[in-house]
Amino acid sequence: MGDCIFCKIANGEIPSRTVYEDEEFRAILDLGPATKGHTLILPKEHFADFFELPEEKAHHLMDVAKKLAPKLVSRLHADGLNIIQNNGAAAGQTVMHYHLHLIPRYENDGANLLWTPGKMSDEELDEVLKTLE
Amino acid sequence: MGDCIFCKIANGEIPSRTVYEDEEFRAILDLGPATKGHTLILPKEHFADFFELPEEKAHHLMDVAKKLAPKLVSRLHADGLNIIQNNGAAAGQTVMHYHLHLIPRYENDGANLLWTPGKMSDEELDEVLKTLE
Repeated sequence: MGDCIFCKIANGEIPSRTVYEDEEFRAILDLGPATKGHTLILPKEHFADFFELPEEKAHHLMDVAKKLAPKLVSRLHADGLNIIQNNGAAAGQTVMHYHLHLIPRYENDGANLLWTPGKMSDEELDEVLKTLE
Repeated sequence: MGDCIFCKIANGEIPSRTVYEDEEFRAILDLGPATKGHTLILPKEHFADFFELPEEKAHHLMDVAKKLAPKLVSRLHADGLNIIQNNGAAAGQTVMHYHLHLIPRYENDGANLLWTPGKMSDEELDEVLKTLE
């Protein structure tokens, strides 16, 4: 993808603050961090989203996340961690190259990352279930 | 974990609206959905969070998510999907049994799942990077 900025960053054509790199993935600090240590894991190969990411890459991605997550929390003395991945503009994805957010959380950090639980009747839930059977 | 409600749900001791099940995982409809089709993937074995989840389970989890994510989007005619996983009370985790949220998104659904990007100077970002080296 010639004009994809995350392709260029993942492959080192555009410099970044890299916290991890291997043959398939690069993890970088987000420039507009939700909190201190907000990190993105990018595949070097271009996949638009989770739907395009092959299973074997998803496995490798988990290995990278398993390495980075505890490091972020311990080194930055975080109290928790959100792992977030957005697919599609309707879900808030702004760069159309797959990226996994690791967001360290701190007591009273003021980052507002949670939704308001919705209300659905039993009948409505049953209808959704039926759609998915 | 004798008193863990997600252990009981995952293992079928408490009924749930199950959209997927195999020997290691169960996926259920969230009772307080952020949007229509909000689904949780739970391991049947108890792990508090991503830090406790073994790598091989994380791989299998990705396979389950790869099956469910496109189904949720296509069957429910969603426009996008958030994949979210919270670790620790500071990150908004309320049930201390690992669970992965799959949240279908719809144009103008009003679900507010995004953070406000923060501002950090180059010097501050460099300092974080140094901490993680």
